[in-house]
Amino acid sequence: MKRLFLFVAGCALATSAPAIAADAGSTVQHVVASKAYKGAVAALDSGHDQWVKDIIAITQIPSPPFKEQVRAKAFADMLRQRGLEASIDEEGNVLALRKGMQGGPVVVVSAHMDTVFPEGTDVTVKREGTKLMAPGVGDDSAGLATLLALVDAMNAGKVQTESDILFVGTVGEEGRGDLRGVRHIFTKGAWKGKIGAFFSLDGSGLQDMTTGGTGSKRYHVVFKGPGGHSYGAFGIVNPMAALGTTITELYKLQVPTDPKTTYSASVVGGGTSVNAIPAEVWLDVDMRSESADELAKLEKQFLAIVPKAVETENAARSTKPGKVSAEIEPIGDRPAGHTDPNADVVRFAQAAYAAEGLKVRTGTASTDSNIAMSLGIPAITMSRIADGGRAHAPDEWIDTAKSPNVKLKRILLSTILATAGVP
Amino acid sequence: MKRLFLFVAGCALATSAPAIAADAGSTVQHVVASKAYKGAVAALDSGHDQWVKDIIAITQIPSPPFKEQVRAKAFADMLRQRGLEASIDEEGNVLALRKGMQGGPVVVVSAHMDTVFPEGTDVTVKREGTKLMAPGVGDDSAGLATLLALVDAMNAGKVQTESDILFVGTVGEEGRGDLRGVRHIFTKGAWKGKIGAFFSLDGSGLQDMTTGGTGSKRYHVVFKGPGGHSYGAFGIVNPMAALGTTITELYKLQVPTDPKTTYSASVVGGGTSVNAIPAEVWLDVDMRSESADELAKLEKQFLAIVPKAVETENAARSTKPGKVSAEIEPIGDRPAGHTDPNADVVRFAQAAYAAEGLKVRTGTASTDSNIAMSLGIPAITMSRIADGGRAHAPDEWIDTAKSPNVKLKRILLSTILATAGVP
Repeated sequence: MKRLFLFVAGCALATSAPAIAADAGSTVQHVVASKAYKGAVAALDSGHDQWVKDIIAITQIPSPPFKEQVRAKAFADMLRQRGLEASIDEEGNVLALRKGMQGGPVVVVSAHMDTVFPEGTDVTVKREGTKLMAPGVGDDSAGLATLLALVDAMNAGKVQTESDILFVGTVGEEGRGDLRGVRHIFTKGAWKGKIGAFFSLDGSGLQDMTTGGTGSKRYHVVFKGPGGHSYGAFGIVNPMAALGTTITELYKLQVPTDPKTTYSASVVGGGTSVNAIPAEVWLDVDMRSESADELAKLEKQFLAIVPKAVETENAARSTKPGKVSAEIEPIGDRPAGHTDPNADVVRFAQAAYAAEGLKVRTGTASTDSNIAMSLGIPAITMSRIADGGRAHAPDEWIDTAKSPNVKLKRILLSTILATAGVP
Repeated sequence: MKRLFLFVAGCALATSAPAIAADAGSTVQHVVASKAYKGAVAALDSGHDQWVKDIIAITQIPSPPFKEQVRAKAFADMLRQRGLEASIDEEGNVLALRKGMQGGPVVVVSAHMDTVFPEGTDVTVKREGTKLMAPGVGDDSAGLATLLALVDAMNAGKVQTESDILFVGTVGEEGRGDLRGVRHIFTKGAWKGKIGAFFSLDGSGLQDMTTGGTGSKRYHVVFKGPGGHSYGAFGIVNPMAALGTTITELYKLQVPTDPKTTYSASVVGGGTSVNAIPAEVWLDVDMRSESADELAKLEKQFLAIVPKAVETENAARSTKPGKVSAEIEPIGDRPAGHTDPNADVVRFAQAAYAAEGLKVRTGTASTDSNIAMSLGIPAITMSRIADGGRAHAPDEWIDTAKSPNVKLKRILLSTILATAGVP
């Protein structure tokens, strides 16, 4: 089923779901009607309690930013217990291949292992009926457990696929992690150039999937100067003035609302005492866009503002004891991208939702799929859980109610199997 | 000697020392020739070791900003041991009156009790020959010990003065203390309206005295806004933009070089995460001038810039979830002022230096004298020690060599006695 791996280069935006092409619908119907799928679905049902246990076990292994090692080791073991040869790559990602009949470009099914919560956060899961509460219980511990449930189901149904499926737990999806795990897989690791489709299990609900990746560029700008006594050294350059000009000029920029493009001067700091001209101040800036072109344009404007502000300050006051300078450190780079609304992965997912009587909306977000999308590789991010909320907050919760979650897993399974191909 | 308490309202600046008026010179000569002065001077000489012991004892009682109580109690006891009725006022200042023969406006002789060093700083004094080293050993522990030496000398010489002399240890001279001790004495305490001349023993060297008070106004400005997601909430007002405009507009201001007037945007902070429009950012600003008028003018301009910047931001972006606002908190207010170069205190000090064969320069600084100067009360700040350095630094030092320090104390004593009047 080589046609599945057509690299889409079109630029239309996935603003509304198209009618599902007949062949996508029939491919999903073919999957759903197969004996293997039926066996797998039965295992999704009977494996529900195990899935809940897995969520709890994974959630309770702390996995702070840049410290995913312990959870990665445990997750690799959980994949091995399911008969897969799991390994951990140089970046810390867990990878386990489930061989297909034909080989060729692989289908990646992934969830991320990092949470936003720092070391020492109490990650004990609390239960109220079907509701589970803990920091990170949904994002993305539930995604990892759902991935394991899909492996269990495929094994139980003795599902054979045409393409290989690579099950992945990624590191560094959140914040300063900056998609480092998935970026490594697509640009440096052993699977570089060999991936034909990408699924990320992230987010919640039975209504949405992510087909657009918001791109972002983040910078930490440090303005330095000679510093000195506020009274005695008055008249010398002040890096604070360059910082002020940078903010002022940034906030004069006009950006399009469609494709949505944004900026934010977010965090600021520096200086030591009210009676001293500071020697160092700094500013963190966030820029985002649905469009890689608009993001690049905005970034270029910002990167011109900073040296201009420095130059203006050095021209305005004395540089005798030293000049003002700026160090621009990139602290985030998530490429924008989107998956064509006519890409097979999108149409299969729509058909899979339709087969369960549901209509799915497409949207834009920043997820592991960004990297694939930016490289033109068909990618979508589908829900990890049927219902949940307060991700990134200490009171994060999910609802593990059986019926909607088994339904979601059926949708995920049929979408993935349609993409990988079944005999 | 009522003429000594002439309230000077002239505006000429003490930029160069005038020729010493004949009557100032003869008044100091009269003091120096008196039997009482000679007895006092003998005690300055014989009391040298006690003075060194007092410096060490005072230095080793920690006196962090706003925590001068322990040192105050000890200093009051040291005054009592010298036969004075010392008391501690509502603000924490130590006050001890040495009665004169006539009463009337009092002459204040003061040093400050607070240091810049936080609790827990090791204030153990180290000795190398005549050199003493410890945080705060000079500023202003040596000033307090010198004040005690003057009391000892006056007692030993059985010196009688026409005016009462009020010996004072002040709190809150440094930094955020904002001259609160001396301010209380002049504007609220029992001696309000009753002070005719003011001496602060602060600074070091045998060349300088302070006749001008640099005024300063300091503000902590907190800019608040609704805050929100950097991408999702883009388009709403950002308090950071108002902060940027405030800095930019401040640094457009032109201020005179004479009288020297300065400003500094010194410390900045706020925001929580690069992916969030901040709900709160803040800025600390310092403004100073030798001239009260210029300082008031600068302050007025700054206080107009902040609301204008807020208004500009509220007009530039959506205020639907809330407006940007600014809270302007004064964190420092030291009035500018100066003592007329022809004021008796200045001329007596010049004559006292001249009597020891020394020429003294006049300068401007921020000391306890600022408050008196701003109220038109003749005030000067004279050295506490003949040689020292690195005040406010952990490696602060003074040299207690006998000869120059006894000389300095003779100069202080004759200046004070000329001001207070001796029969």
